[in-house]
Parts: sequence; C-alpha cells; structure tokens
Amino acid sequence: MTTTSAAPGRRTDEQIPDTMRAAVLFGPGDIRVVDKPVPRPGPDEVLVKVAMCGMCGTDLKIYDGHFPGTPPYGEYTPGHEWTGTVFAVGETVDEVAPGDRVCIEAHHGCGRCDNCLVGLYTACLNYGNRAKGHRASGMTTDGGFAQYALHNVASVYKMPESVSFKDAVLITTAGTGLYGLDATGGYVAGDNVVIFGPGPVGLMTVQACKQLGARNVILVGTRPSRLEMGRRLGADHVVNSREADVVETVRKLTGGGADLVIETSGATVTPQQCVETVRRGGKILFVAFYPEPVTFDLTAAVRNDVTMYTTRGEGGNNVKRAVALAEMGRLRGEELVTHEFPLDDIAEALRVVRERDGDPLKVVIAF
Amino acid sequence: MTTTSAAPGRRTDEQIPDTMRAAVLFGPGDIRVVDKPVPRPGPDEVLVKVAMCGMCGTDLKIYDGHFPGTPPYGEYTPGHEWTGTVFAVGETVDEVAPGDRVCIEAHHGCGRCDNCLVGLYTACLNYGNRAKGHRASGMTTDGGFAQYALHNVASVYKMPESVSFKDAVLITTAGTGLYGLDATGGYVAGDNVVIFGPGPVGLMTVQACKQLGARNVILVGTRPSRLEMGRRLGADHVVNSREADVVETVRKLTGGGADLVIETSGATVTPQQCVETVRRGGKILFVAFYPEPVTFDLTAAVRNDVTMYTTRGEGGNNVKRAVALAEMGRLRGEELVTHEFPLDDIAEALRVVRERDGDPLKVVIAF
Amino acid sequence: MTTTSAAPGRRTDEQIPDTMRAAVLFGPGDIRVVDKPVPRPGPDEVLVKVAMCGMCGTDLKIYDGHFPGTPPYGEYTPGHEWTGTVFAVGETVDEVAPGDRVCIEAHHGCGRCDNCLVGLYTACLNYGNRAKGHRASGMTTDGGFAQYALHNVASVYKMPESVSFKDAVLITTAGTGLYGLDATGGYVAGDNVVIFGPGPVGLMTVQACKQLGARNVILVGTRPSRLEMGRRLGADHVVNSREADVVETVRKLTGGGADLVIETSGATVTPQQCVETVRRGGKILFVAFYPEPVTFDLTAAVRNDVTMYTTRGEGGNNVKRAVALAEMGRLRGEELVTHEFPLDDIAEALRVVRERDGDPLKVVIAF
Amino acid sequence: MTTTSAAPGRRTDEQIPDTMRAAVLFGPGDIRVVDKPVPRPGPDEVLVKVAMCGMCGTDLKIYDGHFPGTPPYGEYTPGHEWTGTVFAVGETVDEVAPGDRVCIEAHHGCGRCDNCLVGLYTACLNYGNRAKGHRASGMTTDGGFAQYALHNVASVYKMPESVSFKDAVLITTAGTGLYGLDATGGYVAGDNVVIFGPGPVGLMTVQACKQLGARNVILVGTRPSRLEMGRRLGADHVVNSREADVVETVRKLTGGGADLVIETSGATVTPQQCVETVRRGGKILFVAFYPEPVTFDLTAAVRNDVTMYTTRGEGGNNVKRAVALAEMGRLRGEELVTHEFPLDDIAEALRVVRERDGDPLKVVIAF
Repeated sequence: MTTTSAAPGRRTDEQIPDTMRAAVLFGPGDIRVVDKPVPRPGPDEVLVKVAMCGMCGTDLKIYDGHFPGTPPYGEYTPGHEWTGTVFAVGETVDEVAPGDRVCIEAHHGCGRCDNCLVGLYTACLNYGNRAKGHRASGMTTDGGFAQYALHNVASVYKMPESVSFKDAVLITTAGTGLYGLDATGGYVAGDNVVIFGPGPVGLMTVQACKQLGARNVILVGTRPSRLEMGRRLGADHVVNSREADVVETVRKLTGGGADLVIETSGATVTPQQCVETVRRGGKILFVAFYPEPVTFDLTAAVRNDVTMYTTRGEGGNNVKRAVALAEMGRLRGEELVTHEFPLDDIAEALRVVRERDGDPLKVVIAF
Repeated sequence: MTTTSAAPGRRTDEQIPDTMRAAVLFGPGDIRVVDKPVPRPGPDEVLVKVAMCGMCGTDLKIYDGHFPGTPPYGEYTPGHEWTGTVFAVGETVDEVAPGDRVCIEAHHGCGRCDNCLVGLYTACLNYGNRAKGHRASGMTTDGGFAQYALHNVASVYKMPESVSFKDAVLITTAGTGLYGLDATGGYVAGDNVVIFGPGPVGLMTVQACKQLGARNVILVGTRPSRLEMGRRLGADHVVNSREADVVETVRKLTGGGADLVIETSGATVTPQQCVETVRRGGKILFVAFYPEPVTFDLTAAVRNDVTMYTTRGEGGNNVKRAVALAEMGRLRGEELVTHEFPLDDIAEALRVVRERDGDPLKVVIAF
Repeated sequence: MTTTSAAPGRRTDEQIPDTMRAAVLFGPGDIRVVDKPVPRPGPDEVLVKVAMCGMCGTDLKIYDGHFPGTPPYGEYTPGHEWTGTVFAVGETVDEVAPGDRVCIEAHHGCGRCDNCLVGLYTACLNYGNRAKGHRASGMTTDGGFAQYALHNVASVYKMPESVSFKDAVLITTAGTGLYGLDATGGYVAGDNVVIFGPGPVGLMTVQACKQLGARNVILVGTRPSRLEMGRRLGADHVVNSREADVVETVRKLTGGGADLVIETSGATVTPQQCVETVRRGGKILFVAFYPEPVTFDLTAAVRNDVTMYTTRGEGGNNVKRAVALAEMGRLRGEELVTHEFPLDDIAEALRVVRERDGDPLKVVIAF
Repeated sequence: MTTTSAAPGRRTDEQIPDTMRAAVLFGPGDIRVVDKPVPRPGPDEVLVKVAMCGMCGTDLKIYDGHFPGTPPYGEYTPGHEWTGTVFAVGETVDEVAPGDRVCIEAHHGCGRCDNCLVGLYTACLNYGNRAKGHRASGMTTDGGFAQYALHNVASVYKMPESVSFKDAVLITTAGTGLYGLDATGGYVAGDNVVIFGPGPVGLMTVQACKQLGARNVILVGTRPSRLEMGRRLGADHVVNSREADVVETVRKLTGGGADLVIETSGATVTPQQCVETVRRGGKILFVAFYPEPVTFDLTAAVRNDVTMYTTRGEGGNNVKRAVALAEMGRLRGEELVTHEFPLDDIAEALRVVRERDGDPLKVVIAF
C-alpha cells in the first residue's frame, strides 16, 4: 500500500523494524515489557520513535482496570502523553516527515459524527470506535509506553529544536488547559483567575493564564512543594487550603470574586469553593473528574449568572497553540518533570505515581 | 423639574393623582391594601397605570420575608410581573407616550458596573443599589401590586392591541426563558430540547423552543394538568416523572440524549436527570433556584463536554423578542392565567398560589 | 475489502451494477451522457442511486470551464445538489443502510487540517485534495448528474418519506442559508431581517428566518415572479429594487435599519445597500460571489459596529437541521422546482438555466 | 444637590474653582484658550483635574469642522484622550475618590437603547443625545483640552502610581485595540497576526497581541521610524509596504496567511491587502475610517469563510484590561509620546499633527 519509491526521506514499510519493546497490560496491576510488532502507518498515519512518555492519574485507572474501552489485555500498550521523532509516514502525509520532532494530542475524532463536524471531537459520538476513525492514543488504542507509536497525522504537532522532549510531554498537558480556556472564550487579559489543583494541568494553566495577560493568578492547593512550583511558574498568589480560608482569601485578593475559576483538583469539596469564589457574572471551568457525585450550592451559580464550562482532552488547535507558546519560551514544562524511568521500570514508575513517593509532579518514561 | 408645557399627550406632574390604592407589606405574612402616594416619574422613568400583575414563587418568598434587599416594611409594594398603560413619562422619554400599552422586564441595571457595561445587567454588581441606578421592580423597589407603578424606560416595552394584558403578564415570564436560550446561543433549529418543570417559565419556554424550530420538545413534570397544558402549547412529548423513567424515556425519544436540557423545576433531584439526559457535547440551562445544595454527577458533565448555563431574569433584548413573538401570535400567555383576583383580595391570591388551591398555573391581580 | 457476507440488507460489491449512465464534461460547453463504471464505496462511503439533482449558477461556471479544481475532462461528472436512495454502504457505515432515502451536503472536509479540527470544514485547508480526504461532490469529485453517486457518510442525511426528492434538492440549498445564519449566531427571534436576492438560497432563507421567529422578513429583488414566490413562502414584505428606493424602504419598514442583512444576490451594487440598510450594531451575512471587486462605504460599517459574516457551503449540522425543519413541514422546497429534465437533456437544462428561459427558479435532472 | 457634609476627602461644589483655562473651538480652524466655568459633577459624574490630553486624527476632523454632533462653536472643548486626578465626585460615586489618578474611555452609552442593553454602547442608538445619557467625551460633549473635565463614573478607570500620565493617554488608545480584539474573540495565543498601520492604535495593538500570546506579529506600514518603534514594542516582523510586496511577504512569513488581520491604517488600498493576507477561515478586524468608499475582492472573503469585524471606541471592559496590562508593565505608552505642548500652544500642536512636523507619533497637551 506504500509507494515503493518513497519521497526523499520517506521510509518504506520494509525500513521499519519488525519488533519493538513495549509495555503491555496483561490484567489489572499486571504490566510487562515485551516484544511486539512495530505497527505500519496507514495512509493518514504517522509512526513515531518515542522519546518520552508521561504518566498521569488516568494511567493509574487504566493500570487498575478501571478505564472503559481499552484494547484487550495481553495486547494493549497504554501511554497518552508521548513525544518523539517521526520515523515513517503514511502515503498521504506531507505535514510531517521522518526526522521531525513531534508532540501529540491524545484524541482523534471519527470526523463523521455530529460533534466532530462542529469541532467537538474530544466529545466524539463514536468514542472508542476505531473502525469509524476514533482514537484516544494510549486509552482506546495503543499508546506511547513503547519504542514506537502510531497516531493520526491530525494529532501530531511538529516542534522546533528549542522545545525539549520534557517540555513536549507537558505540552499535551498544557493543551488540556488551553482547550479549557478556549471553551471559556480565552480572553483573560486583565482578569483575575483562580486555579484549584497544582498538579500538572493546574501548573501549566497557571503559566498559560499569565502568558495570556491575566492580572492575578491565584493557585489553590494542599501540597507546599507544588504551590511553590506554581509561584515559580508565575502564580501571583498561592493559597494552601489546609492553612487558609480559601473563599475568604480569594474574595479578598480579587475584590469580591474571580472572573474565572478553573477547577483541576477533582476534590469533591472544590465545586462549592468554585461557586463561592467566582464573581457575579463570572465563569467556572471544570477540567477534573470526581470520585463520586458532588454536592454544591447550584442556586448560587444561577443567582449570579455563572456559566460552568467543562472540557476533556486537548481539542481544537490548542496543542498547536501550546507548541507556539513553548517555542517562544512562554510555557515551561521541563521543570515539572521530577522523575524519569526507563521503560523496563514502568511498574516502579506507576508505584511512585500512586504512592506519591518522593513528591512526584510529572513522572516520565524516557527512551 | 418637569417641563410646565408638556408635549402633546404628555402629562405634567400636576395631572398625576396624588394617591392610589396599593398592596403594602407590613411584615412577614402581613400584606394590606392601603392608600399611598403615586410616584412621579424621574427624567428617564415611566409611570404606568397597572392593568394586571402576576404572581410567582418569588412573591411567596417575599411575602414570607425570605427575600433579601426588599424596601422597608410598611412602605414596600411587591409585584414584578406587571403590565398596563403608560400614564406619564419623564422629561427625556420619547420611547413611549401616555396611552401606550406596555409590559416590562423586572430588572434594570445600574449601567455603570463591569457587568452592566458588557450587557450582563441581570447580574448587576450594584444589585439593589437604587442610588446607583439599579432597580428590580417589585423586589428591590416598589412594583406592580398597585394602581400605578414606575419603571425605567429601558425596562418598558410597547405592545400592540393584539397582545392582551394576560398575554403581557406572561411575556415577562417568556423573557426569562428566551434570555436563557439566548445565553445558550439560541439556535435550536432541528434540536431536541428537554424542559424540566411545567410551570409558567417552562410552559412559555416550550412554546419559544417550538417557535424557534426545535425538532422535539419534551416536557417533564409531575402534574398531569400542567403536562396537558404543555402538550396544548406545543410540546411534542410529555413525561410524567412519577409514572415513567425520565432518563430512559428521554434518551429513547432523543436517540441518545438531548441537545439542550432546560431545567426550570427547582427540584433537587433534577440536576442529576439533566446530566443523564443531555447528549455528549450538549448544553444544560439552569433557570431555577433550589431549596438546598444539590448533588449530582458532575464528572458525567465533564466527561461529556457539557456546558452548563445559568441565567436569572429577562435580560438582553429578550422581552422585546417575546413581544414580537406574541404579536405574531407565536407565544400564547392568556391560556396560562387560571385565576384572577382584585387587588383587595391579594392575600387570598397568595394563599391560592401557596396552597395550589384549584391547581393554579398563573394567578394575577387585575385592576 | 468488503465483507463477503454482508449484514442483512447490506449489498456486496458484486451486487452493484458495473456501469451506469452519467453526464460527463468533455470540455467547456461539451457535456455528454455516457456509460461509466459505477464506483464502489470505500469503508466510510455511501453509494446512492440518484433520484434527482439540482442545478445552480456554479454548474454554469463549471460547464464553461471557469471553476478551479475539477476532475479531468472526459471523466468528470458534475452535480452537487443531489438526492436519492442508498444503494450500498462501505464496511464501517451503519449510520444509513440500503433503502434509506437521503439528501446531502456537497462538502466533506479532510478532517485533519486546522480548520476541519475546529469545525470549519467548508474552509478546509486541503480543499480539492482527494487523497487527504477532502471532497466537494460534483465540484472536485464526481457528483450527481449520474445514476449513482458516492459520498462520505458524514455528508449524507437520512430523511423521512414525508420529504419529497424535490424538497430534498432544496434542503442542500437551505443548508447554505442555515449555515450562514448559524455563523451569525442564529438567534433571530423578533429580529428584522433583510434578504437580498430571491434565488433559491434567498427563498429558502426567507423561510428559515420566519421559522426561526424573525419579526419582519423583507425580500429584495428584481424579478416579480420570484418576489411573489417569496411572499408565498413567508416574506412579510417584498421590495422590487427596480421600482422602489431599497434603502429608504427598508429603513422605513424596520424603523431605522435591519438587525440582520443577508446578501445572496451577488450583484455588485448590493454590498453598499447592505451597509445602508443594516442598523447600528447589526450584522451582514454575505453568501454570494461577485463577478468583480465591489465598492462600498466600509467606513459606515466601522462607524456602526457592524460585523460582516461570510459562509460558503452547508457546514456544521445545518443540513441535518434543514431536514428536521422539512420533516416538520416548516421548509418547503418543492414549490421552487420549476423545471424537470431527464438526464439525456442535461445540455438543454443548462441552456434553460443560463438563458432564464421560462423564468426558471430551480431546474432539476430527474431519474 | 451635593451633600453639604461630604464624606472624608469628598469635595463640595463650593470647593470647586469657578473658572478654568480651556481650549474652545470658535469655528473651523479657530481654537482659542479662554476662561470657562468649571462644571459641577452630577450624581453619577466625576470631575477630573486634567494632567494630559492626547491628540489623534479625529481631533483634526473636529478642528476642521468635519465631525458631526459636536457642541456649538464658542462653547465646545474637544479632547478625548485625557487623564488626570479626580477632583470631585457626584453624590452616588464611591468607585473613585478625590486624589485618585484615572484614565478614561471616551464613550458612555445611554444605557437604555437596545444596543446599550446588550453591551454594545459604543454603537449607542442615542449617540450624541446628552439628555438621554450618551456622552462621547471631547466629541459630543466637552473633553480634556481644559484644566478640568467631567465624565460619567462608568467611563473613568483608577490606575496605580506605576502607570504614568503619558502611559495613561495611550491606555485609551490601547482600549481601542483591545476592544477590537475582544470582538474577534480575543484568543490569539499562538496565532499569526498582521497589523496594518503603525500609528498609535496599531502600535498599542502590536503590544497587546504579543502580550496575549500571539506567535508572529507582523506590522505593515510606510514610515520607517514608526516601523522601528513597532519592532521595539514587540513586532516580530515589520514590512515597509513601499519597499516590499506586502501580500507575498506576509503569506510567506505566515505560511499561507494570517489567522487575524487588523487594519488600523485607513488607507483605501489596505482592505484588498487584508483579504489577500488572511488565511482561509481567518478573521479581519477593521478599526479604521476611510476617506472614501473602498474597493476590494469581497468574493475572496466569502470563498474563504472570512469574518470581518469592526469596532469603534474602547467598549466593554477593555480600558480596565488595558490598565491591568499597563500596571503589570505589559503595555508601554510613554515611548509613543513624541511631542508635548502646554495648553496655550494647542493650535501649534494641531499643526504639528496635521503636517507631521518632526515625525510625531503621539502629541499631547500637558498641564
């Protein structure tokens, strides 16, 4: 299916190695590094030699068998925050070429459902339906805990030398924050913004909001090391919710409530704090998942004309935007990478994430 | 301050009667009809001879003393769904003239806070501050349970003969639904819409959605008489939540979830039904107040990229839009008026509303 | 590549006839009806037995060789307003099945460029690049002047029996108007709307605007028969620009200018009339192509805070919306079909369109 | 009308000087500095001791008698880019207090027309109607070429010590650019932006776009000194349209066209360059007035799904946003002030602006 005389620099299927080392999930809590065939890129696909792949809370859910729609045990390679160098491309691909350094967004929509047609592909109505074209890399298809990974060309973003692979892992994360901002309008110049949750999404969003002109960015969390990191990355104020009254502090700092409240923590107590810290007519953005139903004063939101946005993934052109900001030196990801493991130690890496051993921020598998 | 030689048809202050009959709240549960001075219109105000004033749940809260920001007992005349004929106008008013039949929106913003400047005046930051220009007629200032009522010219809408005063009472209500629709984008052509709560707001919104081209409008409630009314007013389907599984029924009727879910019921169980009946990538609009915090699966909203809008009041140009639809015969209010009382019987009217005596839908005071 | 044992009702490639009659363009002005292989549907494609295909001004440009990006002469079958019955579907298609009556939108985006990713696929950056997935049926690929036509499943819309094939031809046209409305916000309830150009797009948009609640729809044109048709389809006022002063008339009818002006005429004098008939703060929508650069008072637009939208094609979910409106009997297309020809008379049909012989409104090829 | 015992720091009318020095226009080209009564602030007004007032092209039109709606000759004081220190406030004003340093936006809407109600007050339908509450300071009412100037409290913005009066003059200008950006969505992170016209609006917008995360900001103009200034203020590329092919250069720099093109030049040739430099699916913002009708290829805009925004003035909360950016050191105005004159030399200052004597960028009157 591939042209025999490839364009200069274009690799044929024959030039792709037969096998690679890859982490494969064999059952809940059972991940092993094994040999596996290297996939061949379809017409609109890109094969990437993976340089690095980050881990997040979703990987723990996957590891434990609590994530719906994953490929069968014994075949499935997780990992959705990967970056690397293009190794081969499908026959219609000219957007990138072998040798290009790229980062990714996890989600690729089917391109044919009502949501994809209007640009809401992270809410693809054919989610998980590979035959119809949907792919959530590392979630519903194989991902980046392997030497090579495939993706649709639409989900792959070229990046310059100045952006390191560590930065690149966090660009996917930044794309999540930027997509959320995009949904809220994205015009935060001069606004007061509160961000709950100093994890990677929160910390990348702190930077994004400052870079987009926010007046005061207030980061709320519980772990001093992460709050400190937030301050280094640009937060104007940090609030430790174990030490201070969050609502009172934020209302004071903002003169009555924030223009935009971004909730990335996933703590069930936070939505109530959101409605109490947002100003009348303000916006709340939820980019978090909660372990159980949440209880909060919805009437306060209605009485104050508050709009509540939600987003999932890194849709729109937001990873592209993140690459541009990183290229200009305006998004720093590298500082968030606290732990680096080789692929063979992936089980140990997952343990570190789960047990928060050594206060990890972003743990990556490096090749 | 008023010109002595008024324009033709323009009444001078001297031509305004000195006193009128008005309902005044003297304390919780203590409303009396008394004589009271007729107010004189300020430069940008309109004095209306009230023809009719509707009652809603908010009036019960006010009657019971549970509404913040009302004028002092012994002075305060409630009533925020009024309509009538212009009697006199302030010196700068040429938008309406004595003799014009008008309906109103309750809220007038201060015009100087950050929210008013961008059009969010129902979320005015000077809410309740009369000196700065805010007025919520019948709530933070005197309203329409009186022979005469004042309002800012911006909140008064001229209407043609073809729109009756009963229709006009419900135009304010329709404005609430239309403002909510406006917030969600307002483009519902071909959409499936679910509306929870067959009260006046819900029923006017059923009509609005059908008139704006919605494909299926599904009305959910508990009282058969109201559901029947909904069907008469255009609902394609009605679901009695005491008899049917709401979520299952709606998902079946909509083929997987509604494009837009509008919650007007204020029942604490409804928000959970909202997130379960909206489709992936859909919208929820909350135009209801709840007696206590609500509990629902917020994660479902996030996972499905659902935006949650809230609005209060009848902002924007939505009462104007409602008048236009009523003029074209595309919004019917009259059928909702089930009970009519003279001003002297206002206490009895409030009892009927509270006790749902005779299954009232909209109770009005008629002059 | 197709499964040998198809699902019930699913046709295999073997069951598809080998050849069909199709109009093929052999050069400018040289169209012939010839035998041609029936294409086989790819995995995400649908093969339709064409029932009817409309003609528009674009077809004349194509016929004359003035449309860029068409397939080679001797192979190319134009026709982009077609409808029919599904005959066979690709292996991943379950959205429609053989026997379903369908209509279409012409454009299918590549699904991988920056514009497609945000839902702007009618502005696909890979326009005309079939290999990358773009297809403008009848323009950059074969279309509907043939017994069978292929399309991507995303561009095919199932419709009920109650919608006739004549209606269906005009649904594509209505989709153009609705997509334009969508771009402007789509919330026209109570608005005054002026529509320039009583051609098929203008006439379908007249209906759409009335159905979405517009207060006054004013149709402007030059041909009395078309204006009369506009009135029958719901225009509140029609203005013959050869007889009346358009600007003065519209400003009088709207009390100072329209909320929304929709220009579908393509006459170079119209943009100036647009800026003179729109109200301060209003909107203009251009869905027309001009034979040469246009001259107008752009300063008037700037001074009045007027936003100028443009759209091309029938993007978003707007054909779906049009089908829903047609199903409810709220969009009538059939009345616009004035001329019907068999495929063999396609050259004659094109002549009728060009020479306006018999005052045609919509000319169709019927099978 | 003012309280006799003012709040601490509140000045009574008696404490306001009776007269002041003010420039007054006596006829076209006849401006004189005379004694004039100092106005008393109404209930919602602020009296400011003017520190500085900038000049722009509009002032030349006013000077020449070519601006509609100005107050009568012999009374009228122009000047709409002023800044200073609050001297006294009306009885309802607590947003600012005497001693506060403030800058302004020129426009204040009536607050009662359909446009003001939805936040479009720079397109106020009562433009120029002082009685109904509209005021365009220095244009339809007295402005800042005087020792004292009045404004509505809604149009006055407090600023910190760190923002100089020179900066403050340009904050009004920046507000114009930000309001335009706001209209286009305001989310330019990672975008390529072209700005035509390196005047004060263009130069402040260059800064704003960079501060909001634009990838490449390309400034196009004809005067080398201004282009050089643009580069110092953050433009990534400058193009001298007298030396380079603008369209070719921009398309090359942007890889096919800019995401956003902002036209501030007012040159009649520029709109054509706008449609040729914007990418498919991109946006054009016009914030310029043209001396005559413009001619351009509107079809190119339609074919490419380009939306054309226009704005006038500094609406929304954009001056507030500009103050915040200035306070953070992210908008620099001071460098644009090239000429400073005392009030008595206002005629000379106007001559310098008109004749471009000494290559002025921003000329100010300083008190």
